[in-house]
Amino acid sequence: METDLNQFIRNEAFRDKIVSAEEAASWIEDGMSLGMSGFTLFGEPKEFPRALAERGKQEKFKVNLYTGASMGPAADQAMAEAGIINLRLPYQGNPVLRGKINSGEAFYIDQHLSHTAEWIRQGVLPAIDYAIIEAAAITEDGQIIPTGSVGNSPIFVQTAKHVIIELNTSAPREYEGMHDIYVPGPAGERKDIPVYDISKRIGTKGIPVDPAKVRGIVLSSQPDIPSPLFEPNAETQQIADNLLEFLRAEVKAGRLTESLAPLQSGVGSVANAVLNGMKTSEFRDIVVASEVLQDGIFDLIDAGVVKFAAATALSLSKKRVETLGQDLAKYKDKLVFRPQEISNHPEVIRRLGIISFNTALEVDIYGNVNSTHVGGTRMMNGIGGSGDFARNARITIFVTSSTAKEGKVSSIVPFVSHVDHTNHDVDVIVTEQGYADLRGLAPVQAAVKIIENCMHPDFREQAYEYFNEARARGGHTPHVLQKAFSWHTALAETGTMRKD
Amino acid sequence: METDLNQFIRNEAFRDKIVSAEEAASWIEDGMSLGMSGFTLFGEPKEFPRALAERGKQEKFKVNLYTGASMGPAADQAMAEAGIINLRLPYQGNPVLRGKINSGEAFYIDQHLSHTAEWIRQGVLPAIDYAIIEAAAITEDGQIIPTGSVGNSPIFVQTAKHVIIELNTSAPREYEGMHDIYVPGPAGERKDIPVYDISKRIGTKGIPVDPAKVRGIVLSSQPDIPSPLFEPNAETQQIADNLLEFLRAEVKAGRLTESLAPLQSGVGSVANAVLNGMKTSEFRDIVVASEVLQDGIFDLIDAGVVKFAAATALSLSKKRVETLGQDLAKYKDKLVFRPQEISNHPEVIRRLGIISFNTALEVDIYGNVNSTHVGGTRMMNGIGGSGDFARNARITIFVTSSTAKEGKVSSIVPFVSHVDHTNHDVDVIVTEQGYADLRGLAPVQAAVKIIENCMHPDFREQAYEYFNEARARGGHTPHVLQKAFSWHTALAETGTMRKD
Repeated sequence: METDLNQFIRNEAFRDKIVSAEEAASWIEDGMSLGMSGFTLFGEPKEFPRALAERGKQEKFKVNLYTGASMGPAADQAMAEAGIINLRLPYQGNPVLRGKINSGEAFYIDQHLSHTAEWIRQGVLPAIDYAIIEAAAITEDGQIIPTGSVGNSPIFVQTAKHVIIELNTSAPREYEGMHDIYVPGPAGERKDIPVYDISKRIGTKGIPVDPAKVRGIVLSSQPDIPSPLFEPNAETQQIADNLLEFLRAEVKAGRLTESLAPLQSGVGSVANAVLNGMKTSEFRDIVVASEVLQDGIFDLIDAGVVKFAAATALSLSKKRVETLGQDLAKYKDKLVFRPQEISNHPEVIRRLGIISFNTALEVDIYGNVNSTHVGGTRMMNGIGGSGDFARNARITIFVTSSTAKEGKVSSIVPFVSHVDHTNHDVDVIVTEQGYADLRGLAPVQAAVKIIENCMHPDFREQAYEYFNEARARGGHTPHVLQKAFSWHTALAETGTMRKD
Repeated sequence: METDLNQFIRNEAFRDKIVSAEEAASWIEDGMSLGMSGFTLFGEPKEFPRALAERGKQEKFKVNLYTGASMGPAADQAMAEAGIINLRLPYQGNPVLRGKINSGEAFYIDQHLSHTAEWIRQGVLPAIDYAIIEAAAITEDGQIIPTGSVGNSPIFVQTAKHVIIELNTSAPREYEGMHDIYVPGPAGERKDIPVYDISKRIGTKGIPVDPAKVRGIVLSSQPDIPSPLFEPNAETQQIADNLLEFLRAEVKAGRLTESLAPLQSGVGSVANAVLNGMKTSEFRDIVVASEVLQDGIFDLIDAGVVKFAAATALSLSKKRVETLGQDLAKYKDKLVFRPQEISNHPEVIRRLGIISFNTALEVDIYGNVNSTHVGGTRMMNGIGGSGDFARNARITIFVTSSTAKEGKVSSIVPFVSHVDHTNHDVDVIVTEQGYADLRGLAPVQAAVKIIENCMHPDFREQAYEYFNEARARGGHTPHVLQKAFSWHTALAETGTMRKD
């Protein structure tokens, strides 16, 4: 065992720091702020949060929990169940935690994923007492090698008073060498974020850490946590086809080539269907400059559609988790993982001219997008990185099914019940009905295009009823405020948005 | 006259191009797209648009009009009156044009001011047939020296099929040397936007133009157009004091020094009051990195409060227009004017860590901001550059009086009737009542802070009534959608938002 561990902990200064998860958890005090590695369930510590949650069942205390993005059963779920989360940011996706947030038992700040590091750097948030970082190894020169995500770990380690490393001896050894860690200086003093060709490295292969700051190393052998596999169905396939049709129209118009522009895609079933659809497309040598890489990326590389992919995290299904070591070895020179403030940095997104597509929960006839709140009140997961990309991309696309709840809910409404992306930032809407390219259109023109091209036919008549009544009253963005949310209130009262 | 003009047109290739405004206007055909210099009434051609509007009274044709920002009586107003504007972007502020937009007679795209150049570069908008650019001079090497704004002129000149120069012989000669023209390459091929120290020049002193593309030079001797002078009153002074109090708190917390961070301020009475309040403050050696420079900037430089200011345009009152030549001579080494895609570039704003403050029309209890639409429908001026700054600034501040219309309207409402800035992008709200620092707060915490610190006392009780009813129903951002716009509908029906 001793010999074994020396392969993982290759710097002597770290070797006497091994402690149990329970001991490390005992260091945490009420009111502390924790910065934890982890993004879309990848790269998160598992033993430490579970031990902390266990302690929370016996003892009354609460902590602030900052992460990269969504965390799994040991972290968000166990900690939420134990009731020890006071404030959570910047993203979450666990149903138990979500319940606590919506009931007011936990505070949540829904933040653009590139902003958290800036807030920490500026001292806006309570300072981090402990950074807890999952590692695949600690190098000879004292760098923490992350596992399947980088997220906010570099800024957590840089600013935390203490660091706890959760060394995962079951993590694929191939993780080492796949990260590219770069931390910008303070605003006002920094140079450019030097990402010009995303395949060229700009930083270090691990997160440098002063051994004196590392209070403990917790051992773990728990595998990466898989996400559900999103197989395309007829509807998501149709959305994907419509999105590809839009991209083809851009190529035809001479605004893009068959290698498109660096591509960012959100997580989920539609994104997966799009990637799937690209596999057999004419597109070639695409660069992926995304936040998260899903299963499909490997097939796209094999198919010659994608030539390189950068992101901050993986999010893989069970099948791909099982072969991850082999896959990482195979695709090592085609992939790189950077901190989320770099993958999502406005400077980089605008410079590279990224094409961004993300999922909308709800869209309105003028192109405003709700990504987060059901009925304007109940938080689902959070805005995530969609705002970072939408605001700065070359082309910003939002995809959604035109209906939900067996056709009782229209995803396209007169007025979105919550605005995450204003129509200034939304270029194209895609549903299974078609796509609406809103660029160059005034609001009333956009409304007609969205209703005609994207809305489910069953809702078009009532949409025109609203739009025409509003338009008769005049205004640049015509609305009848008395009826703006009438579809939502009808749903709440009658169980359907349909006026039949 | 010949000799005189040679001082202004210093390159021989341009000298035989002088035509009357009427002749130049006769070249414009129905359906053409025009890119016109001009931003907050400064630097716009005056003879050409007036001649075009005159032609529009005799003849039926329409054009698309792209500018830097708002234009004056000869451009937006005369052209709107003549009914010759089909599509207008990205910003306007003229009441006649606004009327046409709200009645549906003219289409308008309300666009982030840094985005227009990107759309033109990508070929998303109809290509520019004629660029019409006001100039102070044409240099020996064939550069157009702009006057009081740069705006979008460089991209207009670069991409237009033809260029018309309106040479203004009454423009202060001191304009020459005050501009710094830099045009980024296409997304995906460009390097960094090399603004690190805003006082260091990155480009050329004028806009390079191929003489073969210049079809005509129209002569003008019309002075720069002044804007109203916004003298502080008791209320704007109180808002300014509250904003300064927030900045002092940041200094006290160690997050800023007395030179703050590069400052962007919107245009208008509150911005002017803030600048006025800074004159006698302890703040020193501030850098202004803004979109527009107003009257107050000169006094702040004299007072040692501001050490350098960059922007894309001037916006001055009558008094300052009269002494402009002298002022430009005096402050020449303290000022620089860049294209609006540089002054407002997300890369630059995020890198420099700008503190941004802009005026809100309406704010909601969760910190969402409406900058543009009265009652959610009628366009006022447009979002302008506020989104460019809000989305990328170090600290984003929105200011507003807590009430309007003699206290009948609360500027803070349950749900804004239009969203231009989501609460993800809004850090601080300031009214004459106080300021609410929303950073680090969950929505329900933000609501209490906004109601307590910023709302007019007359509206607090009814705000709590809404908030408490919503909160009892649960949710991360509690709302009662049936009543979300009840204050707006009450105003429309009864003339007041007050429930007395």
